[in-house]
Amino acid sequence: MKELKDKILKEGVAIGTQIVKVDHFLNHRLDIRFLDRIGAEFSKRFAGEEIDKILTVEASGIAVASMAATYFDYVPVVFAKKAAPSTMTEGFYEAEARSFTKGTVSKFKVSQRFISEGDRVLIIDDFLAHGEASLALVNIVRQAGGKVVGVGAVIEKGFQGGSDKLRDAGCRVESLAIIDRIDDGQIYFR
Amino acid sequence: MKELKDKILKEGVAIGTQIVKVDHFLNHRLDIRFLDRIGAEFSKRFAGEEIDKILTVEASGIAVASMAATYFDYVPVVFAKKAAPSTMTEGFYEAEARSFTKGTVSKFKVSQRFISEGDRVLIIDDFLAHGEASLALVNIVRQAGGKVVGVGAVIEKGFQGGSDKLRDAGCRVESLAIIDRIDDGQIYFR
Repeated sequence: MKELKDKILKEGVAIGTQIVKVDHFLNHRLDIRFLDRIGAEFSKRFAGEEIDKILTVEASGIAVASMAATYFDYVPVVFAKKAAPSTMTEGFYEAEARSFTKGTVSKFKVSQRFISEGDRVLIIDDFLAHGEASLALVNIVRQAGGKVVGVGAVIEKGFQGGSDKLRDAGCRVESLAIIDRIDDGQIYFR
Repeated sequence: MKELKDKILKEGVAIGTQIVKVDHFLNHRLDIRFLDRIGAEFSKRFAGEEIDKILTVEASGIAVASMAATYFDYVPVVFAKKAAPSTMTEGFYEAEARSFTKGTVSKFKVSQRFISEGDRVLIIDDFLAHGEASLALVNIVRQAGGKVVGVGAVIEKGFQGGSDKLRDAGCRVESLAIIDRIDDGQIYFR
């Protein structure tokens, strides 16, 4: 998606060789007009697929998934929680995801009430890096007996191997911009 | 908003006398079609106000704020973070908020780049209870020299005093449903 690549080059900040900071439109300040177009692009990529719900993870995935949902006939969005709130008393599916950026391991949780057997689920997230977060979501969908229609990522860091792991797990992956290399403050796309 | 009250009665779960659980449409599973109408309602309540951006807090506020933003000419949304990510290296505004439900204190953080002097900011959140979260957001806007146009809450727990505190702090408050009492599994509206 050319508009996205232009925006990453204009507003993104490359840090070292592993991180691109896009908090101006995706991770802290949300450029809603732009995220609306991101949502429309996901609907083009997954056109013709029957989708019952979108699954993402708090917090940065929520805005993108919500805007995208409006283009998929307003299907519900479910977001995995990284900590169980005191009101989450009933059964939930759980899967571990390591964050290389934060150096932490999260246990993603989704209430068993919100993914059902046979559900056709589109996974959407802001970043696809090592694939840990998306694989945890795939794991949760499959625990529930649902089918992963695909994984949509706004930005993929292609050099961190996440999309290969997802394809090995049998998932279709659509990334709207794939970064090949971050080097000396420069971002290079595939 | 009658439709919201009906939905709370139908899908909400009263827990004890203090908590109503609405994770079926607002806090875990997001009913995007309904949140779109919630967004439209906020735009009616704040019609005629000039708004530069919407401020909310991760995670449950993000979907509501994003859907609302589409009705305010797609203004950007900024969400306060409860923990500073490793990429948040520059200056940020900070304010403390206690959560009575969780029994924790969070330090909300917003990058200084995303609220500017003179900004007219609408604060939107899912719940207004004791008002701690909203007051922290008001505090952050004022640290930045911005003006709080108002505070919009989807559900107010009227018996916890948050809206009085916000009005004492000089803020207009618009809650789409005000719960007066939770008792014996029943929810009573004002």
